[in-house]
Amino acid sequence: MLGIELNRKSELKLWRQIYQALKDLMLSGKLKAGEALPSTRELARELNVSRNTVCEAYNLLIAEGFIISRQGTHTRVSDGLFIESVEPPLSPKITNNAALSISVDFRTGRPDLSQFPRFLWRQLLHKVSEELPLEAFSYTGPQGLPELRREIAAWLFRNRGLNVSPDDIFITAGATHGLNLIADILCRDNQKILIEDPCHIGMLDTFINKGCSIVPIPVDTEGMQTDYLLRCQKTGPIYVTPSHQFPLGGILPASRRAALVRFARENDLYIIEDDYDSEFRYSGKPIAPLYTIDPQRVIYVGTFSKVAFPALRIGYVILPHRLQARWCDLRTHTDVQNPSFEQAALTEFLRTRKLDRHVHKMRKIYSQRRKVLLESLEEAFGSEWVAYGDSAGLHVAIDFPGMLFGEAFYNCCLQNGLYITPVESHCIEKGRHQSKLLIGYGHLEPDVIRNGVVLLSDIIKKLDI
Amino acid sequence: MLGIELNRKSELKLWRQIYQALKDLMLSGKLKAGEALPSTRELARELNVSRNTVCEAYNLLIAEGFIISRQGTHTRVSDGLFIESVEPPLSPKITNNAALSISVDFRTGRPDLSQFPRFLWRQLLHKVSEELPLEAFSYTGPQGLPELRREIAAWLFRNRGLNVSPDDIFITAGATHGLNLIADILCRDNQKILIEDPCHIGMLDTFINKGCSIVPIPVDTEGMQTDYLLRCQKTGPIYVTPSHQFPLGGILPASRRAALVRFARENDLYIIEDDYDSEFRYSGKPIAPLYTIDPQRVIYVGTFSKVAFPALRIGYVILPHRLQARWCDLRTHTDVQNPSFEQAALTEFLRTRKLDRHVHKMRKIYSQRRKVLLESLEEAFGSEWVAYGDSAGLHVAIDFPGMLFGEAFYNCCLQNGLYITPVESHCIEKGRHQSKLLIGYGHLEPDVIRNGVVLLSDIIKKLDI
Repeated sequence: MLGIELNRKSELKLWRQIYQALKDLMLSGKLKAGEALPSTRELARELNVSRNTVCEAYNLLIAEGFIISRQGTHTRVSDGLFIESVEPPLSPKITNNAALSISVDFRTGRPDLSQFPRFLWRQLLHKVSEELPLEAFSYTGPQGLPELRREIAAWLFRNRGLNVSPDDIFITAGATHGLNLIADILCRDNQKILIEDPCHIGMLDTFINKGCSIVPIPVDTEGMQTDYLLRCQKTGPIYVTPSHQFPLGGILPASRRAALVRFARENDLYIIEDDYDSEFRYSGKPIAPLYTIDPQRVIYVGTFSKVAFPALRIGYVILPHRLQARWCDLRTHTDVQNPSFEQAALTEFLRTRKLDRHVHKMRKIYSQRRKVLLESLEEAFGSEWVAYGDSAGLHVAIDFPGMLFGEAFYNCCLQNGLYITPVESHCIEKGRHQSKLLIGYGHLEPDVIRNGVVLLSDIIKKLDI
Repeated sequence: MLGIELNRKSELKLWRQIYQALKDLMLSGKLKAGEALPSTRELARELNVSRNTVCEAYNLLIAEGFIISRQGTHTRVSDGLFIESVEPPLSPKITNNAALSISVDFRTGRPDLSQFPRFLWRQLLHKVSEELPLEAFSYTGPQGLPELRREIAAWLFRNRGLNVSPDDIFITAGATHGLNLIADILCRDNQKILIEDPCHIGMLDTFINKGCSIVPIPVDTEGMQTDYLLRCQKTGPIYVTPSHQFPLGGILPASRRAALVRFARENDLYIIEDDYDSEFRYSGKPIAPLYTIDPQRVIYVGTFSKVAFPALRIGYVILPHRLQARWCDLRTHTDVQNPSFEQAALTEFLRTRKLDRHVHKMRKIYSQRRKVLLESLEEAFGSEWVAYGDSAGLHVAIDFPGMLFGEAFYNCCLQNGLYITPVESHCIEKGRHQSKLLIGYGHLEPDVIRNGVVLLSDIIKKLDI
């Protein structure tokens, strides 16, 4: 009698329950090396199951080497099976922070997805999925679907005046993914990387995770202060957001662009241009990428997370020729390629100019929301504040000269249901931007924006900052 | 007269053509620092366009800092713009190998996609895309959709007897992607990793790319020879394919499994279990994962590339609790998450048991093809060969004792339209498996398999190997 109990209502088949029970007995040492097992006939009778069921269990145990069966003798337990059992640790879950109730979420980088033409997207997805050839279900290559790269090239040409060959475009799973592969290519072995300060902290963490050593270059209202580059003793690739500096919003002026490219050429460096949201510029046309100045020196990083939707996970990089073979090799060995269906649907979305139309519509909406935000700030604070940077993007940095926003302030905001980010949280060198707040408005309805500013004003008054 | 020529048939708007032409003139030094530009009225007349068109161009050039406009004076070119122009290199393309015409492609790891229920998949994709809530278009978290993780847990329970919580399952973009993140977590700073030899060379490259230092552990017909572990001076995480060793096909016996887990415990190491194709076992039930023996010591890596289709890009890992927070942090900073639509469609595919049915069907088909292959080999070579390993998977390693397959042989195969992989190409230490060939049969129709074996036999005879 082995004491096996079967649960006839379980989804687990009976043979597997027997197999599992025998295995547990052997691993825990209750059935010992060399010990004879009952014959399949005996065990079947004892458990009231068919003999075939027991045979299935025995066969898998034989295949896995738990028991040894020789003709004419009993089936016996193999040697060397005993392992001390370990109790699984208790309360293993990743615990989330106690969810605070947030009524106004001023976080940055969130597009308004409720405006995205989801019905149309589904139609396109359905259409392309019907047309996708059999080969599209297999490996389709690390560079991304050729049709998608063609459409991206056309989109960049008609919207940004960028003249780029589809052969130089490499599909990614978004900007972060693109930056990761670039870091793998450029920043091995404790390599220096020159980065705007402040910059996007998530992106900074990406480079730190790769073991890069960070050299901060200060930023002013016009973006990276390229004069500082010349003072750098040690150089490495340069990361910039020239069209709309994150988070301060400056446009890098032409003379600094030229200085940057000259510096990169003199030191044989690459420039990584992160163009994360420059499609949304409200006071004029989108700024031309730095890439146009020197396509063999600048790596351009773009994404569809903001102009389409984040869960799409499609972005792209435009790579200098010298890096292309290495990129393909690396992509093949990290995550192989993007899935096919989204690539095909985005191709169609671009081809039919639906994305152009969507961006056009969103530019108006975001521009309107920005206006509401700035008007609300004026109502609440008069002239005690300055909006930083160009009129573009989904967020704005607001400077309140003379104020200092510290931990107490941000905690008080959270407790009052207001989520707001300090510019300081994106700073490498701390202490220089404590009077600035980041307000993301793109995803918020005008009323929510107005309420948020009132809430902010109340908190500032209450804490007497 | 600036000599600007406009193309009125171009998709590039006229204002952008003017903007581009002026920029080129400034960057190339033909328009020099301080030089005055014509007024917008003059240029509009000269180019026969509306004044607004010229204003658009001038406004963007002002925003980008190329020109400076002060009231009452001429618009002038900014300082410091000149950059020496660089000719883009010629013939930049990544060149593919001259395409040889392959009539029989015995490569490994390819499922037969023509059998995949594509129509059904499209229906499911369409259905879930209609039901996906708005939130699914935004960031849905680094761990993957909870519903998908629940369905994977249920699938593992009913098919493998694996009792795992959905909280411990982490969605990946396939096995390679999972192994990359694991390597990032476990193998920093030149860490040793103990790897089966032979092993999958692509996976090996992944670890080498991370800077891991490779310690090969020899493999025999029963998988990793765990006795060699005890002789290792330096230890690190251990990579194994215990259910179906790649490429030789052995099942790691229970005593070696126990030895492996004891060794990992004594040295406080993790075991990485790559379960790449064990759903397809033809002589009995799928082998139980090593994971079942010690869930806090074994990292289980699974994929849907073989059982569904490669372009799906969905796999999963089951992680010990201690590694989960680090995984989420790392995923957030590398490629953020999987796209939503495929995850939702796969959820439905699992929930409705369509994947169970597909695997069941494919097991029969692959088993039949394996039989055809072995019969053809017998017809062509009599008893001069041995099939290695368990009756499972999409490929088999064939040993031809006494023969030595070298470069001349593989070149001759290619020239005759036969693609076949040497086991040696997957070896870390070379020279021990030169008599073995890898034949992938899963994706091939019986006739193609038969022709391939005849072709192989002809080549072997011709070269007198």
